[in-house]
Amino acid sequence: MNVGMLSELFASIGERGRRLIEGRIELGGKPRRVETVIELAEDLLSHRGEASGVARAGEILAAYARFTQDERTTFFEALAGRFGVDHGRIEAAAEAYRLQPSEETAQKLHLAAEPRRQELFRRLNLAPGGTRTLVDMRTDLIAALRSRPALETVDNDLVHLFSSWFNRGFLVVKRIDWTTPAHILEKIIAYEAVHEIRDWDDLRRRLQPPDRRCFAFFHPALVDDPLIFVEVALTIDMPDAIGPLLAAERPPLAAREARTAVFYSISNCQTGLKGISFGHFLIKQVAEELKKELPALETFVTLSPVPLFAGWLEARRRPDHAEALPEADRRALELLDEPGWEANDLARRAMTPVLARAAAQYFLEARNGDGKPVDPVARFHLGNGARLERLNLFGDLSPKGLRQSRGLMVNYLYDLERIEKNHEAYADAGVVAASSAVRKALPKRG
Amino acid sequence: MNVGMLSELFASIGERGRRLIEGRIELGGKPRRVETVIELAEDLLSHRGEASGVARAGEILAAYARFTQDERTTFFEALAGRFGVDHGRIEAAAEAYRLQPSEETAQKLHLAAEPRRQELFRRLNLAPGGTRTLVDMRTDLIAALRSRPALETVDNDLVHLFSSWFNRGFLVVKRIDWTTPAHILEKIIAYEAVHEIRDWDDLRRRLQPPDRRCFAFFHPALVDDPLIFVEVALTIDMPDAIGPLLAAERPPLAAREARTAVFYSISNCQTGLKGISFGHFLIKQVAEELKKELPALETFVTLSPVPLFAGWLEARRRPDHAEALPEADRRALELLDEPGWEANDLARRAMTPVLARAAAQYFLEARNGDGKPVDPVARFHLGNGARLERLNLFGDLSPKGLRQSRGLMVNYLYDLERIEKNHEAYADAGVVAASSAVRKALPKRG
Amino acid sequence: MNVGMLSELFASIGERGRRLIEGRIELGGKPRRVETVIELAEDLLSHRGEASGVARAGEILAAYARFTQDERTTFFEALAGRFGVDHGRIEAAAEAYRLQPSEETAQKLHLAAEPRRQELFRRLNLAPGGTRTLVDMRTDLIAALRSRPALETVDNDLVHLFSSWFNRGFLVVKRIDWTTPAHILEKIIAYEAVHEIRDWDDLRRRLQPPDRRCFAFFHPALVDDPLIFVEVALTIDMPDAIGPLLAAERPPLAAREARTAVFYSISNCQTGLKGISFGHFLIKQVAEELKKELPALETFVTLSPVPLFAGWLEARRRPDHAEALPEADRRALELLDEPGWEANDLARRAMTPVLARAAAQYFLEARNGDGKPVDPVARFHLGNGARLERLNLFGDLSPKGLRQSRGLMVNYLYDLERIEKNHEAYADAGVVAASSAVRKALPKRG
Amino acid sequence: MNVGMLSELFASIGERGRRLIEGRIELGGKPRRVETVIELAEDLLSHRGEASGVARAGEILAAYARFTQDERTTFFEALAGRFGVDHGRIEAAAEAYRLQPSEETAQKLHLAAEPRRQELFRRLNLAPGGTRTLVDMRTDLIAALRSRPALETVDNDLVHLFSSWFNRGFLVVKRIDWTTPAHILEKIIAYEAVHEIRDWDDLRRRLQPPDRRCFAFFHPALVDDPLIFVEVALTIDMPDAIGPLLAAERPPLAAREARTAVFYSISNCQTGLKGISFGHFLIKQVAEELKKELPALETFVTLSPVPLFAGWLEARRRPDHAEALPEADRRALELLDEPGWEANDLARRAMTPVLARAAAQYFLEARNGDGKPVDPVARFHLGNGARLERLNLFGDLSPKGLRQSRGLMVNYLYDLERIEKNHEAYADAGVVAASSAVRKALPKRG
Repeated sequence: MNVGMLSELFASIGERGRRLIEGRIELGGKPRRVETVIELAEDLLSHRGEASGVARAGEILAAYARFTQDERTTFFEALAGRFGVDHGRIEAAAEAYRLQPSEETAQKLHLAAEPRRQELFRRLNLAPGGTRTLVDMRTDLIAALRSRPALETVDNDLVHLFSSWFNRGFLVVKRIDWTTPAHILEKIIAYEAVHEIRDWDDLRRRLQPPDRRCFAFFHPALVDDPLIFVEVALTIDMPDAIGPLLAAERPPLAAREARTAVFYSISNCQTGLKGISFGHFLIKQVAEELKKELPALETFVTLSPVPLFAGWLEARRRPDHAEALPEADRRALELLDEPGWEANDLARRAMTPVLARAAAQYFLEARNGDGKPVDPVARFHLGNGARLERLNLFGDLSPKGLRQSRGLMVNYLYDLERIEKNHEAYADAGVVAASSAVRKALPKRG
Repeated sequence: MNVGMLSELFASIGERGRRLIEGRIELGGKPRRVETVIELAEDLLSHRGEASGVARAGEILAAYARFTQDERTTFFEALAGRFGVDHGRIEAAAEAYRLQPSEETAQKLHLAAEPRRQELFRRLNLAPGGTRTLVDMRTDLIAALRSRPALETVDNDLVHLFSSWFNRGFLVVKRIDWTTPAHILEKIIAYEAVHEIRDWDDLRRRLQPPDRRCFAFFHPALVDDPLIFVEVALTIDMPDAIGPLLAAERPPLAAREARTAVFYSISNCQTGLKGISFGHFLIKQVAEELKKELPALETFVTLSPVPLFAGWLEARRRPDHAEALPEADRRALELLDEPGWEANDLARRAMTPVLARAAAQYFLEARNGDGKPVDPVARFHLGNGARLERLNLFGDLSPKGLRQSRGLMVNYLYDLERIEKNHEAYADAGVVAASSAVRKALPKRG
Repeated sequence: MNVGMLSELFASIGERGRRLIEGRIELGGKPRRVETVIELAEDLLSHRGEASGVARAGEILAAYARFTQDERTTFFEALAGRFGVDHGRIEAAAEAYRLQPSEETAQKLHLAAEPRRQELFRRLNLAPGGTRTLVDMRTDLIAALRSRPALETVDNDLVHLFSSWFNRGFLVVKRIDWTTPAHILEKIIAYEAVHEIRDWDDLRRRLQPPDRRCFAFFHPALVDDPLIFVEVALTIDMPDAIGPLLAAERPPLAAREARTAVFYSISNCQTGLKGISFGHFLIKQVAEELKKELPALETFVTLSPVPLFAGWLEARRRPDHAEALPEADRRALELLDEPGWEANDLARRAMTPVLARAAAQYFLEARNGDGKPVDPVARFHLGNGARLERLNLFGDLSPKGLRQSRGLMVNYLYDLERIEKNHEAYADAGVVAASSAVRKALPKRG
Repeated sequence: MNVGMLSELFASIGERGRRLIEGRIELGGKPRRVETVIELAEDLLSHRGEASGVARAGEILAAYARFTQDERTTFFEALAGRFGVDHGRIEAAAEAYRLQPSEETAQKLHLAAEPRRQELFRRLNLAPGGTRTLVDMRTDLIAALRSRPALETVDNDLVHLFSSWFNRGFLVVKRIDWTTPAHILEKIIAYEAVHEIRDWDDLRRRLQPPDRRCFAFFHPALVDDPLIFVEVALTIDMPDAIGPLLAAERPPLAAREARTAVFYSISNCQTGLKGISFGHFLIKQVAEELKKELPALETFVTLSPVPLFAGWLEARRRPDHAEALPEADRRALELLDEPGWEANDLARRAMTPVLARAAAQYFLEARNGDGKPVDPVARFHLGNGARLERLNLFGDLSPKGLRQSRGLMVNYLYDLERIEKNHEAYADAGVVAASSAVRKALPKRG
């Protein structure tokens, strides 16, 4: 079984399967019917004591781990229904509040309107490994949500709890390098989501050379399992393409000669923590650690993919969007349909101004339903206070790069002095911070 | 400055002062008026972004640290009032719920009824050292509560958050011994609440001999500062007095010869975490670790103080409680008023049956307003599922022991097989688990 | 570059090359002529002070690292000649001893007869990384010895020093498992000398399953670079073949069910430490650690290759050794020349008694020039006090196994109670400890 | 038992006693007669095998630990005599060398002239804890040497072995601070030899403030027991008195404001390693680590005692040394006999030039039998390449300071650029590096 296969297997079996294989959890106890488990959960909620609660919580989680997907869905439906709110209790509390509105009656109403599953989740979390299992449970729930949108109230409650438990103050940043234990490194291989790590030698090339760094966030309840990690390349200048940055044979730079730190890959590791944000804390903390280690660093920048650009561009090229593109541009872009265009110098030159215009519009003008930029990576970095610094039209000519962004990559600049201002302007007014070079690429309008 | 003075100083300056002295926090920034800080808090709540929030949260916490006690009270009152619930929002959500009661409208009502300070606390917690400062803030709040009971709603919110953050799954148990770093050991000296540790040599006697153990719980956000710790003596038999157990000159027992582990001191360390329970988890985990290290251990037992017994007994001896005690008992107990009675064999013999009767009643019959046993230590151990095993009438003849319990100590037995049953019977029905020997000490009734 | 290639590359470039690649040493300074370096060495020896010595030692070692192989040989010859003994000094000391033989004059003679290079080596060892470079220097010297046997006096001095520096008391045993840092694990892959580790997945199969263990010795001056390691399989019974033991798909055994610990691979890692023995310390210590972790283990045994058996057997089959084998045996062994014999049941049955006889003679009767058994692995284990327990005629049917031992493997039994007795009988009288089953396999003689 | 008492007890019972108390060694086995132990040692030497040797070495060392002081002396005498050289073997080897002088015959002569105890020590060192016991054995031997100078040959052999085993390359420098384990800190208290540490609070004042540092050397075979440590104060300027530097109430300096690192106390910890030098390595390495942590540091300097100055000065004041001091000086120095002179401003002013002259002569002109400066601290620092920078006539007005040096302290400057040159000039030609200010203090001569 080679690393590529392993990584694929990992992806397909999910996190729980992986831990099973690693022997970190055991399929304890005998299988149980969903109804029995729901009774156990009622029981867990109705007793006040913690001592017996821990054992009962453990039983429930062990039984859950053996459920089939169908049984899980049944269990989620019980969470949404039976373990939802107690309407009688809400009505009474609402009435008491109406009669005498005060902090006290509001507090009681607040508690009365809390779905019972919240307390259930808190008690399940007391079992050894409880947090781990609840995070995995949410992975299942997210999958189930697609066909049962009504389960979203359950998901909201998990998000609320996880936001509290995975609070930034409880996270620990650790450097990942070639002296990191193998069982953690193999997760880096499996979790890398941006530029695939093919095998251990590829991994070594990301970690061992003097001009490479990698940092990850860990949480004490998910021992040795990273939440998110970022890969960094140290360079002289801001890079404009991913190929040379990752080339196997490149001569490494001495760290003290670097002036630029490039965050070229950021991967979330836990599907079950989707929507719980710690990415921007990681970037900020990593930038600070790097600056402390290497005071000569002046620029902190990403080299980022543009995952939705190709789709957006193709939509505009469709005949029914005639107004989206001037005819000349539309014709120039037909070159994209020629296989191998990216290696053809003439084609590249012809398309350069057209692609640049389109890219600038994609970032600066296109908006999704929430009035935010279309691109999810852009939303992440702009939301962190970064600035869109440069368009690199031919930054990723790999098949994946051509497929998802027609080769386009961009740099987001983290200017530590301006992060807060950019962030607030974006968060409060949707302002996209961009360099004047990017702005100038927008089409001129009469 | 000797250790005794240090420990006293520690007690008087509180946790924040200690950390200031240790250089672990700095009085950053300039002093600010409470009104300014309240504005900052409004600002923190009204912006959505995390990047700028962290800095603002840091400013608020730094300013709070410089507040006088009066300013703190003003700040707490703002938390109770201005940062309380939004009545308009509650009313609207209550009305929406009334029109269409569902999980969704209930969830919205739940959120609407949440006081604004909860979100404020969560955002303050993003600042570096935020958890630490919030725990300290609650220490101040508990002090302020005495004169301002209306602040209790604020306290409720902190308790709710801390219960989530200091969830058992995030705690780490560590052995404390003579190889533990000094800055942690000095906290053990300062925090020991049951049997004072006089100096470093006294500490060494609690940690270094082969028949001593000490374990503490730590939380990743309160680095190197224990939450609770338990001191253990390994013995052959269940001990009946604290003096010999702590004697400086006693010959130590080889650990492998021990059959009994005695939890003789359990100290909570963080006033700001009052009411957040982890004691019983610690005891259970320590019992398991000891059993693993020393499979020959058969008995897990405490040697515990009875802090309210003297007060309770004196109340019954008062003339206006004539019915509480038979005349003969009342007369026998007059010996307690003779100084030095505890060294007088005749006096001890005379009082033995009377004190035993009273002690049995104190534990088995006396109840507080909640229908629970009067004694707080008893409530803790019984609530954990332990059984009251033995009354040791002359277990602590130190001045403190005579003053608070007329010498009485007791053993609570942790029978790992019966913990859950005892616990449930106590939690659900108030049943006090006690050995037949203790039960027999109750007065016979016609 | 896959792992197999990496491992080959490692083997070919030697230890120094590897460390260069890993960036652990730098080719400091400019190249220097051998004569200059020899002058530096003279200088280092002639000054008494340590402060300047450290810098000078560092210069010499850095220059040595840049030497070509020829320059190294020239340098070794200077060590053998110029930095040899001072004959005048010896003669004077010998004369003084002759006139007055005493402890004092003997001590002076002892010092006078010490070659100057010994003190040179001690001073070189003061440079940072000095031990590492001296160990590498001996690797070069061992290579050079083949063509220049006169350098052996230099080698003797290095052996003397290394025996002292790599004293067992300074070694640390560490468990190697899947949580070990990758830069150490990759050395395990590269150094494995008995049963090749093909890639990281193969490595994982040796480390991660619950019935596998691996331990290595480390020295503080060779940080993170193991000296020797042993791989262990936990089994129910003593195994008779390597194939099933290493099979990728075998179901692992729960550690607590194991009764036997099998040392199936022992690899020395540092060519430069050849002849410095720590193998038997490692085996003894590992046996003790395993017994402590798993008290149910009853048997400690190897599954060992027999590297010289095929060569020895073929020599006996040659026509000019007519007396070595009875004609019937000789004929039976002709089956060995048929490709695929090992899969032919009839052939195996026919040869079984013949091979068993030969193997018993190989171990019990054949002797090398020193009167010791011919087999180097046998000398190692018998020297440690182990007993030759069982012949496994078809224990290794891999191409390598067939080539070097015609499939033969053996078990050496480490009976902790008898190790010392076996060892002394072997060391003092050359007695080969063997089970009665092995002894019975010897040919009956009239 | 307070810390002062503990420290005294430590000093009186010696290292072995301390480890006994700490339970780190056990008095294993039964007591044995010296003759039996000598037989065991003969046995250990005569067998070649290591497996049985380890056990036998352990027996010998355990028996030694139970010896009385008299038995130890008997054992040392056996080491000096019976385990000395083999005269017959020397004579044969000397004859062989005479007939054919070569590297080979010299090597054999070298080995033949080695006393048998050297090999004995090497084999004893294989036992667990062997190095520790051998170091302790030398402590006993040094004590015995006073009455039996003939044992010096034994001591020479131990020094030879220890120099090899405690080679700088095997030492690890560790920072000691308030987070260091207590069992190590208590050794710092016990070992501090220059400025006594009175108790744990005094220790904390040396370790915890931001302007204090402490570093120690450790060896892997003496786990957790430091070999030598140095205490450092960070200051603005070069200090001229110890009192203010150690004052309990002084306000600490922020580390980043420091320009000077003051090595104010260097303590050797292991009597058994007397004469094995690592002090100058420690100072150099500490200076480098400090420079790395605090690049603003410009000056590395000691504040050192002058332990023999009072004795030397008093000898010159004796009437029979009339020529040593001009009459005026002699009279001025009579003020030293007035109690309290050091607090009398007039007296200090009167004596200043006289004391300065005497101090300059003490350092620059006085010589011991080996032609080296009289002062042992001076020999240590000058030998390391430091320069005598300043005389501080009233640097230590404590009773101890007045008693041993009439208040005099000095600064030795470690100028990293000049260390090597100073060191060589001192080592090769006895040149004392001194600032011009010190030189100018010498009496003017016609």
